[in-house]
Amino acid sequence: MIYFDNAATTKPSKTAFDRAGEYVTEKFYNPSALYVEGYALQGELKKARSALLSKVADEAAFEWIFTSCGTESDNQAIFAFARRGNAITTAGEHSAVSAAFAELKNRGIDTRIAPLNADGSVNVEKLLDFVDEKTSFVSVMHVNNEIGAINDVNAIAKLVKAKNPRTIFHVDGVQGYGKIPFRLAKEIDLYSVSAHKIGGLKGVGGLIKRKSLVLPPYIIGGGQESGRRSGTENVFGIKQFEYAAEEKFKTLKADYERLTKYREKLWGLLDKELYTRLSQESGTPYILSVSARGLRGEVLLHMADDKGLIIGTGSACSSNAKNRYSKVILACGFDEKIADGFIRISFSPATTENEIEEGARLLNEIGKDLARRMK
Amino acid sequence: MIYFDNAATTKPSKTAFDRAGEYVTEKFYNPSALYVEGYALQGELKKARSALLSKVADEAAFEWIFTSCGTESDNQAIFAFARRGNAITTAGEHSAVSAAFAELKNRGIDTRIAPLNADGSVNVEKLLDFVDEKTSFVSVMHVNNEIGAINDVNAIAKLVKAKNPRTIFHVDGVQGYGKIPFRLAKEIDLYSVSAHKIGGLKGVGGLIKRKSLVLPPYIIGGGQESGRRSGTENVFGIKQFEYAAEEKFKTLKADYERLTKYREKLWGLLDKELYTRLSQESGTPYILSVSARGLRGEVLLHMADDKGLIIGTGSACSSNAKNRYSKVILACGFDEKIADGFIRISFSPATTENEIEEGARLLNEIGKDLARRMK
Repeated sequence: MIYFDNAATTKPSKTAFDRAGEYVTEKFYNPSALYVEGYALQGELKKARSALLSKVADEAAFEWIFTSCGTESDNQAIFAFARRGNAITTAGEHSAVSAAFAELKNRGIDTRIAPLNADGSVNVEKLLDFVDEKTSFVSVMHVNNEIGAINDVNAIAKLVKAKNPRTIFHVDGVQGYGKIPFRLAKEIDLYSVSAHKIGGLKGVGGLIKRKSLVLPPYIIGGGQESGRRSGTENVFGIKQFEYAAEEKFKTLKADYERLTKYREKLWGLLDKELYTRLSQESGTPYILSVSARGLRGEVLLHMADDKGLIIGTGSACSSNAKNRYSKVILACGFDEKIADGFIRISFSPATTENEIEEGARLLNEIGKDLARRMK
Repeated sequence: MIYFDNAATTKPSKTAFDRAGEYVTEKFYNPSALYVEGYALQGELKKARSALLSKVADEAAFEWIFTSCGTESDNQAIFAFARRGNAITTAGEHSAVSAAFAELKNRGIDTRIAPLNADGSVNVEKLLDFVDEKTSFVSVMHVNNEIGAINDVNAIAKLVKAKNPRTIFHVDGVQGYGKIPFRLAKEIDLYSVSAHKIGGLKGVGGLIKRKSLVLPPYIIGGGQESGRRSGTENVFGIKQFEYAAEEKFKTLKADYERLTKYREKLWGLLDKELYTRLSQESGTPYILSVSARGLRGEVLLHMADDKGLIIGTGSACSSNAKNRYSKVILACGFDEKIADGFIRISFSPATTENEIEEGARLLNEIGKDLARRMK
């Protein structure tokens, strides 16, 4: 089985899982408890926050809040700060942001959606045109989850702040954190993270915030996470995330370079009579999106699955919506025929060169097979 | 080590943990994915929902939504339905409800807090007095987490609906589910559940809803949980919860009877010169709250901890708030001296008779010791 849908979720790190096991078998206490065994877990959570934060940000300027997932992190940021005037995002966002923006619109906020460039990155000029004195909030994803385009969020944040320094700038970093060499510029106010995209468990997320920013809670109750996120802390999941991220960051740059080569190798091996490249070289090495013109991506997905190759068709998370075409692919300016043939191939540091070769072979085989049947 | 703080959190079931392990090592896919391996997980989630729901409710009338914790479940219910007119709750609620009600008040909702009886249950007559034609929402906890009082939520729901059939009735069932023999009456609209209180992992919760009730999502995004709770489903945590609950419900009635005996045995063994009983016999057998008059509960907690006995002082979740006195104990009509000496002893089905005896001996020993030092 070749697993090329790592942008949807990754196989959790077993090493990190086993290492964190003591928080299930022994140190299972409630971290809010006053006895030593409970209270000691606050120290463990603090270590985890520090370890996870320091990989991408200056701990003097930023802090880390644990949430239950990337979606919750995005929702918390958006509903906390996009409360008046206008709020801006991009046409490339994950539904965790775009659906929340649809809700903002229902609530009477003037929402503005910046268009994408052909490579899937946001058109920065047009985004900046939207920024005015009434802009309360801007949300730009770090790495697009469908096509892999990287937005230079540090630079965009600087430009937005230059135009309106009071605007809160949020980044959905779910496909960036633990994959892209990157450190947060001081102009970024909030950055959302998900554990399960980098070997963590589902059910753990993070929201990085600028320290001086007052963030209201979205889940209200016992006052955990310094009042920013209530609910008993998922210590086991949090520690497993800490350990998994440690592994990822250790080889982040080497993985980045190796996967860049793999992505190009895979593209090089794909039959150009069948496949059109959608992801550009400037995008994340973790994603190669292509389109099998005249074929249906979903059919290819099932054919690949039958042969032991798992690929995606855009965001797994939006498959519930039963939208035939990826909005992101259309927003890049591709036509419906290209969108129909869209498949997403996404890697992890565990991806091997053999898998790349075998994956390419299978994609060519099923592509030819389907094309023959379509005639 | 004797662990008598099971109302704060329980030791996760290792059997359930190991059994669910395959959702980390093999079936780690995104349940929203379209390929067989991903899509099959939807079936696993459906099984979990059905297993967890059927234990307490008629599946034809109710459905189950997975959330990240009891607090989120409470918040979702409250913020979805307490949107106009007045909303009513009790003075005994966990902060997941009471803090959300404080937020409602900030938003301009007329919030009404029904007082407690001396045993910690809600004064039903006074609660009903608050219900009028403008009451949009009523929230009553099933089992009080500090003193253990059980509210007859089925009966209260019926009475509330008789007065105003349009009122939405919510129950915080976090200390009830998997502990108290109980089935939901049709008058209950929403019931919140937490996994880690009954051998599940932290980071998993449930919200039971009446099927015909239209529940807006609180976390918005990819549309998971039929659009009621977005974010990639925590399949591993959910399956572990399913298996842990299976264990608990298998022996629920026997545990209930055995722990009732244990609770009475413990009370029988405690030195009545030192301790005053707060929890009444009608309360949950899982909690025995007492007060060491003239002593400080927190000091006793630390002394007990030193001797290998872990107890609580009220809600672990509210310890962040640095409130000296439990609001619930005061709301029962006890004075500050009683509230100061308050300790909570809480059990699980794993509690043994030996632990009861040894626990009582230690509590008497440290109580005497502290009383001597205070002279």
